[in-house]
Amino acid sequence: MNNKIIKPSILSGFMELLPKEQIEFNRIMDIIKNNYEKGGFVPIDTPVMEKSEILLAKGSEETDKQIYRFTKGSNDISLRFDLTVPFARYASQHMENLVFPFRRYQIGKVYRGERNQKGRYREFYQCDIDVISKGELSLVNDAELPSIICSIFKEIGLPAFKIHINNRKILNGFFKSLNVTDATNVLRIVDKLDKIGEDAVAKELITIGLLADIVDKIISFISISGDKSKILNELKALNIEEPTFKEGLEEIEIVSHYLECYGVTEENYVIDLKIARGLDYYTGTVYETILEDFKGIGSICSGGRYDNLAEYYTNEKLQGVGMSIGITRLFSQLKDIGILKEETLPSTLTKVLVVPMDENMDYAISIMNKLRNEGINSEVYLEKNKFGKKLTYANNAGIPYIVIIGEEEIKSEILTFKNMETGEQEKLSAQEILNRVK
Amino acid sequence: MNNKIIKPSILSGFMELLPKEQIEFNRIMDIIKNNYEKGGFVPIDTPVMEKSEILLAKGSEETDKQIYRFTKGSNDISLRFDLTVPFARYASQHMENLVFPFRRYQIGKVYRGERNQKGRYREFYQCDIDVISKGELSLVNDAELPSIICSIFKEIGLPAFKIHINNRKILNGFFKSLNVTDATNVLRIVDKLDKIGEDAVAKELITIGLLADIVDKIISFISISGDKSKILNELKALNIEEPTFKEGLEEIEIVSHYLECYGVTEENYVIDLKIARGLDYYTGTVYETILEDFKGIGSICSGGRYDNLAEYYTNEKLQGVGMSIGITRLFSQLKDIGILKEETLPSTLTKVLVVPMDENMDYAISIMNKLRNEGINSEVYLEKNKFGKKLTYANNAGIPYIVIIGEEEIKSEILTFKNMETGEQEKLSAQEILNRVK
Repeated sequence: MNNKIIKPSILSGFMELLPKEQIEFNRIMDIIKNNYEKGGFVPIDTPVMEKSEILLAKGSEETDKQIYRFTKGSNDISLRFDLTVPFARYASQHMENLVFPFRRYQIGKVYRGERNQKGRYREFYQCDIDVISKGELSLVNDAELPSIICSIFKEIGLPAFKIHINNRKILNGFFKSLNVTDATNVLRIVDKLDKIGEDAVAKELITIGLLADIVDKIISFISISGDKSKILNELKALNIEEPTFKEGLEEIEIVSHYLECYGVTEENYVIDLKIARGLDYYTGTVYETILEDFKGIGSICSGGRYDNLAEYYTNEKLQGVGMSIGITRLFSQLKDIGILKEETLPSTLTKVLVVPMDENMDYAISIMNKLRNEGINSEVYLEKNKFGKKLTYANNAGIPYIVIIGEEEIKSEILTFKNMETGEQEKLSAQEILNRVK
Repeated sequence: MNNKIIKPSILSGFMELLPKEQIEFNRIMDIIKNNYEKGGFVPIDTPVMEKSEILLAKGSEETDKQIYRFTKGSNDISLRFDLTVPFARYASQHMENLVFPFRRYQIGKVYRGERNQKGRYREFYQCDIDVISKGELSLVNDAELPSIICSIFKEIGLPAFKIHINNRKILNGFFKSLNVTDATNVLRIVDKLDKIGEDAVAKELITIGLLADIVDKIISFISISGDKSKILNELKALNIEEPTFKEGLEEIEIVSHYLECYGVTEENYVIDLKIARGLDYYTGTVYETILEDFKGIGSICSGGRYDNLAEYYTNEKLQGVGMSIGITRLFSQLKDIGILKEETLPSTLTKVLVVPMDENMDYAISIMNKLRNEGINSEVYLEKNKFGKKLTYANNAGIPYIVIIGEEEIKSEILTFKNMETGEQEKLSAQEILNRVK
C-alpha cells in the first residue's frame, strides 16, 4: 500500500470523455473539419495563451471576470476565451502573407472560468468558420456559411434543426423609423425574448422609457413569422422608407435567395426577426441554430457579419462573416436529450482482432500486417490468456470481427473468421477475409 | 486613424504557422492519427489544465520551474507539461470503464516555460501512443509500437531514419556485474554520450569515483555496434551471468525478432547500447529515433517500457510501453534542415475554383454544389472583381484547377476547365470535369 496515493480527479467544470464517447466526439469533429475543408476553408491554429494586452484589447467586465489570467516571469498571460479575438490578431499580424478573401477555419479549445453549472464548461472546443476581405465582402458569403453548417448537421444526423437568420440593419432601421434612439438597449432586451417571453420583454421596454404604443409596435414587429415569402411580404408591406431598414430587407432577400442556390431549403432555415445576437459586434446578417424539438437548449451554432474584425490591431478594415459551433456543449446536450446513446457505442476503432490460440504470434502478426496494409484497423491479441478471456476482450471493446489462428489454421492457411455480432463463424482464406471486411 | 492600435504579436517561444505550413503540419498529424488508429489505438482527450497536486504528484525541480501554474478562485491549477501524467491520472480515474490491455493514443498541446531558445517551444504538440495492462504486458508490444512509428515516418516521407532500441536491464545488469552500485548516476552520464562524446563521458565517470579499468569496460561496452546479430553475439560472448543482464538480453532478442515480424527491417532499426532515456521511469525497452543524416537534431521519437505508470494515483500496477512524437519541434526541424520546403506548398486545400464572368452566381454555385457533393473541395469566386484578379486569387492560393463560367458556358452547359499549373484549357461538361478532378 502506497501512502502517497492522490485520488485521481479533474478540476470541476471540465469535460472528459470515456473512449467510446471520445470516438463519437471525434467522429463529429471530423465531419465538421471535412465539411469546412470541402468548402475551401483553410485551417489555422493559434496559441492557447496570448499576451493579455492582446486578448483584452477590447475589454468587457464579463470577459475580465471569466478569463484565466496569470503572470510567468515578466509575461502577463491570458488563455483565449474564444477563437475570434485570436483570429483578428492573426489576420492583422500575418496580413501580408494571407490570400484575400481569406477563408479560414479553426477548431480549438477555449477557456472561460464561468460559474459552475450543468452544461457549461470552463474548457470547450469551438469550431469557427470565417471569410474576411479587405474592404467589401460579397453578401453571397452570408448564404454560403449557413449552407456549410447545414451540411454538417445533416451529416452528423441531428434531428430537425433550423438556422434562424436575421439582419441587424432590419432591426436598427425599424427602431430608427420609430425614433427609438437607444437601439442598443432595445436590442439587448429583445434578444431575451426566447428566454423571458413577450410580456417580460414588453415590461422591460417600458422600463427604459418607451411609450406603450411603441412597445406594441416593437412586439408585433418581432412577432412577424411564417415562411420566407410571407415574412418578406409583410416587411415590405410596412412601407418603411428608413434607408438602413431597406438595406437590411434587401440583404436578407439576397441571402435567402442564395441559401436556396446552395441547396438549403426552408426545412432548415427560417427568417426570424427576434434574434439580435450580442450588442456591438455584428452589423448585418446574424444567425442562430435551433433544434426544433429541443428549443430549450438554445442556439447550437451562431454567428454573423461584421464590418471591422480587427480594429484593435490594424487600421485595415477587415469585413467578414463567421459562424461557430460550440461542440463540447452540443455533445453534452445531445447526451442529455438522449439523441446520443453512449451505451450503444463501441470502445474501439478496431475492425478485426486476430486471436492466436497459443503463444506463437508470428503467423497472427503476418495476417494482421495484411489487414493493416489494406487500411483496416486491426490488432493481434498479444497477451497470455485463456481463449475465453481473449473473446471477452473483443466483446468488451466492441470489436466486430475476430480471426482465430490455431495450428490447423496455420497449416491449411484457411482461417476461422467470426462475426462477433451475429456469432456466425466461417472458414476463409486471408484474402477472403480482407474482401469480407472491406 | 485609430489611436488604440496594439501591435499584433504572440508570446515568444510559441509556434504559429501560416496557412500553407499549417496545411502541411495537419497532413503530418493526420498520418500519425490514422496510423495510430489503424494499430487499434483509441483516442482520449484530457483537459489542458489540471489540479496542481495531480500534475506535480511526482515532483521534480526541473518540472516545478518550467510549469505554468496559477490560481483561480480557490483552485491551484497547472497546465500539463506532458501527456503521460494526465494519462496516468485518466487510467486510474476511469479504470473500471476501460478495457485492458488499454491501447490509447493522445494528440494534444503541452506547456513548458523553458528558457527561450531556437527549436524549443513553450507550447507544443505531443503525439503519444501507449499500451497498458493490469499486471504483465506481453513483450511483443515493445515491437509493435516502433513498427507503427516506422510506418508513420515512412508515410510522412522522412529521409533515412533509424529507431534505436536498448533495454535498461542490459545496462543495469552490466553495471551490477562490474559491482558499480551507483547505476543511476552512471546512466545519467552515459546518456550524454552523443552530446559530449566518449572522452568527456569517461572523464565524468572517473569524477564520480569509478576506477579507470571499470570506465574502460563501460566505454567499450557501450561502443559495441553493428547489425543486430553482431551485437547480440558480442553481448552473449561477454558471458555475463548477472540475471538482470540475461533478462535484458533475452528481451531485446525477442523484441528484435518481433520487429521483423511486424515488417521493420534493419534499415529502420538498430540495437544501440548507448541510449538510456531518463533516469527513474523506464524499466526495460527504451527507444530513440534518429534521422541518420541529421543526427544533430537529436531524437525525434522516444519512449520505453515502464512497470508502474500510475503509482501516485492507484495501487494497481499498470505496466506498459509507450512512444511519443514531438511533432511541433520535428516540424520546425524539418524546415530548418530543408526537408520541408514551405515555398512549394499551396495555401489552400481547394481543388477547384469556379470563376463566374459576371455577378450572377446562381449557375456557378450549382456547378460547385456538384463538386462538393462528390467530396471535392471547391469554391466559387464570389467577389466583384476583374477577371484577372480572380485568376490572381487562384494563383496566389495555389488552387490547381479553375472552371470559368460565362454566358456562353451557361447556355451550352459546356464549361471552360483550366489546369492552373500547365495552363492547359479545355471545354468540358460538368460530369467530365468531375471525372477529371477525381
